[in-house]
Amino acid sequence: MDRHVQVGIHELKNKIIEMGGLAEEAIALAVEGFLASSSQRAQDVKDIENRINRLHILVDELCVRLLATQQPMGSDLRFIVAVIKINADLERIGDQAVNVSGNAKRALAGRPLDLDTRNDFAAMCPATRDMVRSALDAFVRNDQRVAEKVLKMDDVVDGLKNAIFAKTIELMEQGTLGVKQGLDLILIARNLEKIGDHASNIAEDVIYATSGQDVRHPYSRTELKSP
Amino acid sequence: MDRHVQVGIHELKNKIIEMGGLAEEAIALAVEGFLASSSQRAQDVKDIENRINRLHILVDELCVRLLATQQPMGSDLRFIVAVIKINADLERIGDQAVNVSGNAKRALAGRPLDLDTRNDFAAMCPATRDMVRSALDAFVRNDQRVAEKVLKMDDVVDGLKNAIFAKTIELMEQGTLGVKQGLDLILIARNLEKIGDHASNIAEDVIYATSGQDVRHPYSRTELKSP
Repeated sequence: MDRHVQVGIHELKNKIIEMGGLAEEAIALAVEGFLASSSQRAQDVKDIENRINRLHILVDELCVRLLATQQPMGSDLRFIVAVIKINADLERIGDQAVNVSGNAKRALAGRPLDLDTRNDFAAMCPATRDMVRSALDAFVRNDQRVAEKVLKMDDVVDGLKNAIFAKTIELMEQGTLGVKQGLDLILIARNLEKIGDHASNIAEDVIYATSGQDVRHPYSRTELKSP
Repeated sequence: MDRHVQVGIHELKNKIIEMGGLAEEAIALAVEGFLASSSQRAQDVKDIENRINRLHILVDELCVRLLATQQPMGSDLRFIVAVIKINADLERIGDQAVNVSGNAKRALAGRPLDLDTRNDFAAMCPATRDMVRSALDAFVRNDQRVAEKVLKMDDVVDGLKNAIFAKTIELMEQGTLGVKQGLDLILIARNLEKIGDHASNIAEDVIYATSGQDVRHPYSRTELKSP
């Protein structure tokens, strides 16, 4: 085992853990502000996103440097390739947290959330955060089983999103909910769904890094070599 | 110049060109169906996405194989790292084309598009496709200037999206446009905007591959080394 490669991989792992922590924090603050009908923390979310963006660039630089100087092989190489992709997903989770914040600010400008809608989001928000946390757990522990659980959690989040969509549309059609507010709520549900999608991508990359197995697009794997 | 590396890079380039062509075709079919108020081509879009997904897996495999067996350096290494990211963006463009198709099918189930809305989308659709085409041109020709143009085109696409959002919301508030149809139109505008974002990502990766310069997050580059 090459010591230089291991030092580099250790550094990469720490940076991804740091980014992941920031991404979780950004989601938590954005969601907390939204559920508390407050936009006070919007600037904090933006600041965290900024730190994620700096790490985004730094992690890519570290990956390229490691590939260039150490020529890693086997599982080390797979780990670095996985990190290049996980890095991109974490950056986009940061973007989506900022979007939640922005859409929430507009959604709440109309009027506070009714209790029913608040409850729906109070279920969807932690489900989405759990996906991100579990995906990072899987990454930290190289744990394929946790990663597989994340992929299953995605169905739950999608179901919660569909329920919010359906209920919001109904309220908009009844005229109980204004068009602008309803739309912002729908966009927030979509932002959260996307965060879940990025967590799923991370889980797939963890499975790839740990097992060498590419589990993406299972339905389209036939005739892979002659597309 | 290592011949084996060059053969591998040539193969990668061809696969990305193939994927890019498919992505453009998927957007064209999805948009064409939408503007013609027809959902006949939805299955074709799905089939193309499937082919993109197969290439997505294949390109990643080729990148890892090339990194493992040839230990490329300098601009070759940057090219491969850029391809890993461009590959992910092209796959997501395929997803978004399928989303356009699906949202269009629902949007048109209500009633045909009014002329005004149709005209707005008839401006936004080709603008988005142009971004993808130009990003791929920049990739094929290693042309940083074309890539920079793509980044500017993104403002135009965002502006068109904002206009569609504002007009659609107005029609929904007036009751001229049903909630469900309005919402689907807004989601289509968002899908197209996202396609533009992915084209911008590709352009940024082309700039990185050709110049070694990372142009992402310019506002957050200060103190890069101590985030």
